[in-house]
Amino acid sequence: MALLDSISSPRDLRGLSEEQLAELAAEIRDVMIRTVATNSGHLGPNLGVVELTLAIHRVFESPRDRVVFDTGHQSYVHKLVTGRHPRFDTLRKEGGVSGYPSQAESDHDIVENSHASTSLSYADGLAKAYAIRGDDRHVVAVIGDGALTGGMAWEALNNIAIARSSRLVIVVNDNERSYTPTIGGLATALTALRTNPRYEQVLDLVKKRLNAVPGVGHAAYDALHAVKKGMKDALAPQGLFEDLGLKYVGPVDGHDRAAMEQALAQAKRFGGPVIVHAITRKGQGYDPALRHEADQFHAPGPFDVQTGAEKPKGKIWTDHFSEAIVDLGARRTDVVAITAAMMHPVGLDVFAQKYPERTFDVGIAEQHAVTSAAGLAMGGLHPVFAVYATFLNRAFDQVLMDVALHKCGVTFVLDRSGVTGDDGASHNGMWDMSILQVVPGLRLAAPRDVTRLRELLDEAVEVDDAPTVVRFPKGPPPADVPAIDRAGGADVLVREGDHDVLIVAVGSMATTAVEVAERLTAQGIGVTVVDPRWVKPVDPAIVELARRHRLVVSVEDNGRVGGCGAVLLQTLNDAGVHTPFRLHGIPQEFLDHAKRDAILTRIGLTAETLARGIVEDFSALSDGDTRSASVG
Amino acid sequence: MALLDSISSPRDLRGLSEEQLAELAAEIRDVMIRTVATNSGHLGPNLGVVELTLAIHRVFESPRDRVVFDTGHQSYVHKLVTGRHPRFDTLRKEGGVSGYPSQAESDHDIVENSHASTSLSYADGLAKAYAIRGDDRHVVAVIGDGALTGGMAWEALNNIAIARSSRLVIVVNDNERSYTPTIGGLATALTALRTNPRYEQVLDLVKKRLNAVPGVGHAAYDALHAVKKGMKDALAPQGLFEDLGLKYVGPVDGHDRAAMEQALAQAKRFGGPVIVHAITRKGQGYDPALRHEADQFHAPGPFDVQTGAEKPKGKIWTDHFSEAIVDLGARRTDVVAITAAMMHPVGLDVFAQKYPERTFDVGIAEQHAVTSAAGLAMGGLHPVFAVYATFLNRAFDQVLMDVALHKCGVTFVLDRSGVTGDDGASHNGMWDMSILQVVPGLRLAAPRDVTRLRELLDEAVEVDDAPTVVRFPKGPPPADVPAIDRAGGADVLVREGDHDVLIVAVGSMATTAVEVAERLTAQGIGVTVVDPRWVKPVDPAIVELARRHRLVVSVEDNGRVGGCGAVLLQTLNDAGVHTPFRLHGIPQEFLDHAKRDAILTRIGLTAETLARGIVEDFSALSDGDTRSASVG
Repeated sequence: MALLDSISSPRDLRGLSEEQLAELAAEIRDVMIRTVATNSGHLGPNLGVVELTLAIHRVFESPRDRVVFDTGHQSYVHKLVTGRHPRFDTLRKEGGVSGYPSQAESDHDIVENSHASTSLSYADGLAKAYAIRGDDRHVVAVIGDGALTGGMAWEALNNIAIARSSRLVIVVNDNERSYTPTIGGLATALTALRTNPRYEQVLDLVKKRLNAVPGVGHAAYDALHAVKKGMKDALAPQGLFEDLGLKYVGPVDGHDRAAMEQALAQAKRFGGPVIVHAITRKGQGYDPALRHEADQFHAPGPFDVQTGAEKPKGKIWTDHFSEAIVDLGARRTDVVAITAAMMHPVGLDVFAQKYPERTFDVGIAEQHAVTSAAGLAMGGLHPVFAVYATFLNRAFDQVLMDVALHKCGVTFVLDRSGVTGDDGASHNGMWDMSILQVVPGLRLAAPRDVTRLRELLDEAVEVDDAPTVVRFPKGPPPADVPAIDRAGGADVLVREGDHDVLIVAVGSMATTAVEVAERLTAQGIGVTVVDPRWVKPVDPAIVELARRHRLVVSVEDNGRVGGCGAVLLQTLNDAGVHTPFRLHGIPQEFLDHAKRDAILTRIGLTAETLARGIVEDFSALSDGDTRSASVG
Repeated sequence: MALLDSISSPRDLRGLSEEQLAELAAEIRDVMIRTVATNSGHLGPNLGVVELTLAIHRVFESPRDRVVFDTGHQSYVHKLVTGRHPRFDTLRKEGGVSGYPSQAESDHDIVENSHASTSLSYADGLAKAYAIRGDDRHVVAVIGDGALTGGMAWEALNNIAIARSSRLVIVVNDNERSYTPTIGGLATALTALRTNPRYEQVLDLVKKRLNAVPGVGHAAYDALHAVKKGMKDALAPQGLFEDLGLKYVGPVDGHDRAAMEQALAQAKRFGGPVIVHAITRKGQGYDPALRHEADQFHAPGPFDVQTGAEKPKGKIWTDHFSEAIVDLGARRTDVVAITAAMMHPVGLDVFAQKYPERTFDVGIAEQHAVTSAAGLAMGGLHPVFAVYATFLNRAFDQVLMDVALHKCGVTFVLDRSGVTGDDGASHNGMWDMSILQVVPGLRLAAPRDVTRLRELLDEAVEVDDAPTVVRFPKGPPPADVPAIDRAGGADVLVREGDHDVLIVAVGSMATTAVEVAERLTAQGIGVTVVDPRWVKPVDPAIVELARRHRLVVSVEDNGRVGGCGAVLLQTLNDAGVHTPFRLHGIPQEFLDHAKRDAILTRIGLTAETLARGIVEDFSALSDGDTRSASVG
C-alpha cells in the first residue's frame, strides 16, 4: 500500500504520474476487496467508481468544492483518498468508519442519507446558495442510472435545467444497474445515448448516396456540412437530457481516468449545470464480482478473496417471506408483487421467476410503486409491495391518499423494520409503526416468528378494502413461540401467577418478552405476555387485559414516539383504563451504526434490562408509590 | 340548458351533431361559470377542458373504460355529462356534489385524491390489471403540464414506456400553467414540442443548399428522401416522450373537439400506451378568466358573472404570513423562499417580486423543494418552504432524512393546516402534527393569532441546526389573544380560580379554549388556559402545570392519533404525572367536504361542546369517579 499510505487528502493526488495513478487504483481496489471480504459492505458499486472518483478529486478541490454521492454506498474510494485509509479496517464496525458518507468523519463528506435519488436536489440547493452568496465553488453530484429512475431526481433535473448560474456538474454513473438492471423507458434512453451511432450512421448514409450520384462530389460534401451544422442538435446523442435543456458531455469511459478528467474539466469550465455521462462496470477489476450474475457483489457478506465464495448464511426473515409469497401466488392468482428495484433483497426473485407476468419492478420509485398498486387493486388484483421499512416513508402520502382514502386492498410487506444496525441511521426501520398509525382504516401486523409471518400474510391479503401492512426485522428469525391461548385476535404466550404484569410484546420483541417473563416469575411476579399480532387497530381484548393487570408494559422495535405503545396508552386513557403503563421502544433519535444486537443492548431492549426495569417499576407500585415511578 | 338537460350519461353525447356539440360546450361553460360564481370552486382549469372532455367521452366508453383525472379539480365537465348536472348547483356544499371526483357520487369517478401527479401511476396499475385479467378496457389519464413536473409522474412514465400491452392513453393537457406558468426544463421541452418547426426547417435548409449546387437536382432530392426516412425519428417533435420510448400524437388543439376525437381514436386503435398532447387555454370561453393575469380564475371565490369582479375578501392568515416574510426578508438577507408551484396561494408573491433572486418556484415537486432546501441551508442560507400542510406529507422522508438527519436549518410554513373543509378529505391538513412528532430535533410551532405568527416565524428562522415548522389554518385569523403570563416558553392565556382544569390549547384552538374557560368559570370551575406556542418538543413547564391541576384537557386542530395531545399524554406518563387527561382533536378518519365551521361543529371542536364535555368530565372526577370517566 505504498502509494495509498501517502494520500492523506485529495491534494496528494495531483502530483502523481499516470503509472502511479494506475497503481493507486489497483491498491484501492485491493484494500476495498479485502476489507469488505472481512467486514461485509458495498463492493460492486465501489469497484465501479475508482477511476471516476480519482478524476473528480483531481479536477475539483474538495472540501471547498462539494462532492455529493447519491445513496452514498459508492463513497469508499472517496473515503480512502480523503484521510480515512488508516481507519478503513474499522469499516461498518461500531465506532468505526461508516458505510456511508459521514459529516462527523470528514469535512469532505456532506450528504449521509442512504435514500436514493436525493443528490441532485441537494446539489441544486448548494449550487444556488453559492451563486447567491457569490461563493465561487463547484458542486459535483454523482448519481447512478438506477437512482435516476426516482422521481425526485427528475424534479431536480427540471429545476437544474433553468439554474443557469449554478456551478453544478452531474456525473451520471451509468452501469445499467441499480441492484439489478435498471428498468423502464429511462434505461432505453440511456442505452440509446450509450450506443447512439445515429449521428455518424446518418451522415455515412447521406455521404454514400450523394457519392453514388455522378458529378456531386465536393458540392455534396459542402451540403453535408450544412446538414451537419443544422442537425447537430437533433442528431448528437444528448437526447433525454438535452430535451430538458441540460448541457451534456459524453458518453465517457468511466474507467478511463484521463478521459474522465478531460470531460470533468470541460464541464467545470462551462460554469453552468452540465451532465457528464460516464459508462462504468459494477465490480470492475475483480473477477468474482464481474462474474456474480445477481448483482455484481452489490453488498456481499463476508467472502473468500481468492474465489469470491461467500460464507454460507443461515435463513433470514426475507427467505421465509420469499417462500410464503410463492405459495400464496400459487393459491391466489390475483396476487401480484411489486418491488422498487430490489427484487432479490426483498425476496421476490423466486416469485418473479415463477410468475413474471405478475411481478413488477418499478425502479427506485416507491411513490409509483404504491400508487400503481392502488391502480392494480382498483383493477381487481391484490398487490403486495415488498420494501424495506425505511423506504416506505418515501411514499407516505401515497399510502394515505392513494391507497387508504380509496379503500384499496394493497398489502405492504416491510422487511428490515426496527433496528437494522450496520447501515446506520437512515436504514433503521423505526418509523413505520408511528406514522402509519394515523392512516384511517390501515391494519398493521407484526409477526413474532415465521409461522406467524405466513399466517398474518395470508390474513393481510384477505383484506380487500383497506391497506394492510406486515412488518418484520432484519436477520434470522427466532424459533417459533407457540401461543397458549387466544384473547380476541391476540396470542397469549405466557400466563403465570397473578395478574401482576401484562407485557404487550410487538413482533420480534415477543421472544425477548418470554425471556423477561421467565425472569419475573423467578422472582414471584405474576406475568401475562400477549402478542397482539395485529397491532393496528388496537384489539379490545388487549384493553380488557390491561384493565385486569396492575402494570402494563409495552415493548416494540420502533421509535417510542407515537408507536404501538403510545397508541395503546392513548386507547387505554380514552377507555378509562388507568393501569400504570411503561412504554419501551427505540429512543426517538438517529442511531449510530453498529450491529443490531449491540444497538438493542445499548438502548435497553434486551431481556435482562427490560426485566430489571419492570421489577423496579412493579416494586415501586407494590410500595404504593404508583404516582412517581419514573421511566428511563 | 335544453341540451345539457338531455345528457344523463356519456352515451347521450354520441348522437349529437357538430352544431349541437358546440352548443353543448357553450351550455357547459355557462353552467360552470354561474355555479362557481355563487359557490366558489375551480373555474379556469374546467373552462380549459370542455372540448377535451367531450372528446374523451365520445371516443371512450366510461365507466367501462376508466377516466382518471390528475388532481381532479378539472372534472366538472366530466361530472356534468355523467349524470350530475341536476345536482350541480350543490357543488362543494355539505352533502352536495364534491369539487373533486367521488366514487360515492358516480361509477364514472375513480380517483378522488386531489394531490397532483398521481394519475399516471393509477392508470399504469389499472391498465396492467386489465391486461393481466384479459379485460379489454381502455384507461385514459388526463394530466396537466404542471402535474408533469411532479417526480412520480416521471416514475410512472418510465414504467408505462415498457408496458407494451397496456391500453393506456395519456392526455397531456398542456396549458403552460399549474397555478402559475409551469417552470423548469420540462416547460422548455413542452414549448419545443408545441412549436417545433425543426423537422420542416431542416429539410428546407437542406433542400435550399442542395438546389444551390449546380447539377444536383433530382439526385439531391433522392438523397434527401433517404435522409428524411433515416432521420424521421430524430427530427419529428416527439422529443422528451419519445426518448422514453413512448408513442406520441400531437400537438393537437385541445379546443378543436373533432381534432381531439381524431387523435384519441388514433391513440385508442394503437393498443399500447400513447401520449396525446393537447394544447388548451385555461379559462377558455370566458373573458374575465382569460384576462385574469394571476391564474386565469384558477379557483375564485364568489364573483360577478358579467364583470368577473370577485367579492371583496377579508385578510386571511396567508396575507399576514405574506407580510411577515417580506419584513423578514428585509431584515435577513440569508432568508430564501421556496414554493411548489403555488407562489400566490401560499403568499410568497410579494416576496418573489421584491426578492426574485431569493425565491424558488420548483414546480409541483415537494420532495425537491425540501431536499433542495437542505442544500440551500448547507450552503449557508435559511430557506423557508411555504406549503399547504397536506402536501408536506409528500416529502415526509425528505424532512426526516434530508433535513433533520443532516441538522439543516430549514423552516416549513404550513398553511391550511387542520380542517380546511370545502375541498374534501384530501385537503385537510390534519396529519402534520402527528407524523412530524417522530422527527428527531424538529421543532413545531402553532401560532394562535397573527402576532404570534410573526413572533414564532422569527424564532423559527433563528434555529439553524434543525428543521422548524410554523403551522396555521385556512381562512381569517381570530383577534389577538393576549398572554397574561409566561410559563417556560408557553403563554398563559387564562388563570381563574383553583387549579381545577388545565386546557392546553394548540394554535387556532386557543381562541376556542378562552371561550371554554369563560363557560367553566361561570360554573365555578377553576381553569388555566395555556398556549404552548412551540408544541414540539413538549415544554417542561406544561408538565409542571399538568402536575398541579386536577384535569388536563388538550385541544388541537389535528388528528387525535399521535398528535400533540397524544405526545403530551405520553410525556406526562413518562414523567410520572398521572393527572386525568382528556384529548380533543379531529377524529382519525377521512372527513367529507363541508364548510370548516360546519365540520368543527360536527366533530365537537366548538366552545359549547368542549365546555359541556369538560364540565361532565370534571364533575365525574369530583364525584371521586376518576378512574372510569370515558371520553367520546
